[in-house]
Amino acid sequence: MPRKICISVVGSGDEELNPQIAKIANEVGREIASRDAILICGGLGGVMAEAAKGAKENGGLTIGILPGEDTGSANPFIDIALPTGLGFARNVLVAYSGDAVIAISGRLGTLSEISYALLKKKPVIGIHTWNLEQLSGRMPPFDEQSYINSVVMCENAEEAVDKAFAIIENREKIKNGTN
Amino acid sequence: MPRKICISVVGSGDEELNPQIAKIANEVGREIASRDAILICGGLGGVMAEAAKGAKENGGLTIGILPGEDTGSANPFIDIALPTGLGFARNVLVAYSGDAVIAISGRLGTLSEISYALLKKKPVIGIHTWNLEQLSGRMPPFDEQSYINSVVMCENAEEAVDKAFAIIENREKIKNGTN
Amino acid sequence: MPRKICISVVGSGDEELNPQIAKIANEVGREIASRDAILICGGLGGVMAEAAKGAKENGGLTIGILPGEDTGSANPFIDIALPTGLGFARNVLVAYSGDAVIAISGRLGTLSEISYALLKKKPVIGIHTWNLEQLSGRMPPFDEQSYINSVVMCENAEEAVDKAFAIIENREKIKNGTN
Amino acid sequence: MPRKICISVVGSGDEELNPQIAKIANEVGREIASRDAILICGGLGGVMAEAAKGAKENGGLTIGILPGEDTGSANPFIDIALPTGLGFARNVLVAYSGDAVIAISGRLGTLSEISYALLKKKPVIGIHTWNLEQLSGRMPPFDEQSYINSVVMCENAEEAVDKAFAIIENREKIKNGTN
Repeated sequence: MPRKICISVVGSGDEELNPQIAKIANEVGREIASRDAILICGGLGGVMAEAAKGAKENGGLTIGILPGEDTGSANPFIDIALPTGLGFARNVLVAYSGDAVIAISGRLGTLSEISYALLKKKPVIGIHTWNLEQLSGRMPPFDEQSYINSVVMCENAEEAVDKAFAIIENREKIKNGTN
Repeated sequence: MPRKICISVVGSGDEELNPQIAKIANEVGREIASRDAILICGGLGGVMAEAAKGAKENGGLTIGILPGEDTGSANPFIDIALPTGLGFARNVLVAYSGDAVIAISGRLGTLSEISYALLKKKPVIGIHTWNLEQLSGRMPPFDEQSYINSVVMCENAEEAVDKAFAIIENREKIKNGTN
Repeated sequence: MPRKICISVVGSGDEELNPQIAKIANEVGREIASRDAILICGGLGGVMAEAAKGAKENGGLTIGILPGEDTGSANPFIDIALPTGLGFARNVLVAYSGDAVIAISGRLGTLSEISYALLKKKPVIGIHTWNLEQLSGRMPPFDEQSYINSVVMCENAEEAVDKAFAIIENREKIKNGTN
Repeated sequence: MPRKICISVVGSGDEELNPQIAKIANEVGREIASRDAILICGGLGGVMAEAAKGAKENGGLTIGILPGEDTGSANPFIDIALPTGLGFARNVLVAYSGDAVIAISGRLGTLSEISYALLKKKPVIGIHTWNLEQLSGRMPPFDEQSYINSVVMCENAEEAVDKAFAIIENREKIKNGTN
């Protein structure tokens, strides 16, 4: 049995989320579940809770990698709550655990997760979030083939999840020499 | 929907496992899956692989919290591989993530996981492993009610998993004031 | 005795450093040592080694928070080498350990350190590095008084270290109610 | 210039320390400083504070690797406070950072530090603490030459620090082929 695809969703933990962002996060969660992939997030509120809610509404499985030492802080849409006790350093684990990372809005915590995902050469898809391309000169050149070294900006949830799966499949083909 | 129970299984990662220990680990995995709980482990070989194999043979779900930065080192019985890049420090996360921890044989890594589980007041069940009771005087007194502050030694897999679930249920009752 | 001021220096670990960047890193190290502060860095090569070298040439004390489990990877200008075994997650510790963070050039690892430092509301001074101000709209508003929520861009080493100390002193005054 | 020797001191963080244990911790700190070595500890109270106090009384340098995100919890005898935000997982770093580890009394946190130090084949000297030898059969055989795989039990501070330095020197000789 092949291992299931995992998609990490990162973004603002603010409880009072902009309704447009909340809707996008929910749809991203739904789209991930509809493709039978596992949703991984930081387990708290805001974008994390909305995305997990969307995945659960669509029958998906959700994992929350929590900053605290206990499961109590997990949002109610998390199936498997993993307390780390590592504080913000758990962001590294969220970034490492996805086959791709989808970033929705967000501020500095999200920026740390994007940084770690790109460091590990993960595909990073962004919606209304940090666009590192604007910061000319600091990034290694973008690799057109593997989508490494850039946040691939998308406009909506379906496009973002489609893009994530397309890049993952393409990498599998390159790895297996079938491309 | 109540969150699923998670049981962490810790023990030697030696590939050449004593056949008796391998059998016990496999049975512990089977017993965990038969109770519809999720098996969490360090994701590598030895006791971790045997326990995950047992769980998969019984239709269970398995999670591996890996020391490396990639999923490549996960044993083939891991459904969800979480790379941490934290090295041995990931032992802390394995200890924190279970509602109970079952330790089977093992050496220093296992001892670190037992220490962390007891620090967090998790129930710890042991089979042929470190018996901290033998080290008189260093532990706070054993709490008969909650099984805190001790490794509860068992002789076989079924007894160990039964004990883990009995303690978890008992704690739920205490917490809910129905005991 | 008041605790000594610690300044974290972050930047590219590339061994073949641009000579201009190497010179700036060396001068930042010298300036930190000349103010009797402790230099903290990630302990490896590139900007980390040049800055530590500058500090040692000026009689300073240097600490390297290493990604590996052993001290062997520390550059030769590190007095106290702290192996963490945490890989890139040690970036969090480098960001947390300074009273201010000075970022010189750098790529994704540096961006993660800048993110974590700003998350913890540390003053961050930048030379030829990521200028988050260019990414409009994603950051909380800049606080003129405390220099929170922005990378303060400087042109040279002396200006950067002066600025770091000025902000640290100003915060002390605010904290002590003498401003 | 050769790198300075670092000795990690671990033990109970209880504020109301047994006076005999407090005296031993203080003397261990003094002995470390008198040999011009750096004292590393977890930075909090109890054995950590007493050992750091002893080192400072003797002109030594002290480092505290703190569980929290801020330096505020450091005891007043810490020169360099490194906040990690990692909670108990910072125990791994304390264990890794010493050329030898001296354990004084202590409970489960200390046991995790002893486990990690032995995992990394550090010399571990114990005073009134966990004696893993009592747990027959779980440890690899003790190596007489390198003192690996055992807590070397001592009766007092001077003996413990002497032993730590003797083992470190002996290892250096083995490494350099002069033994």
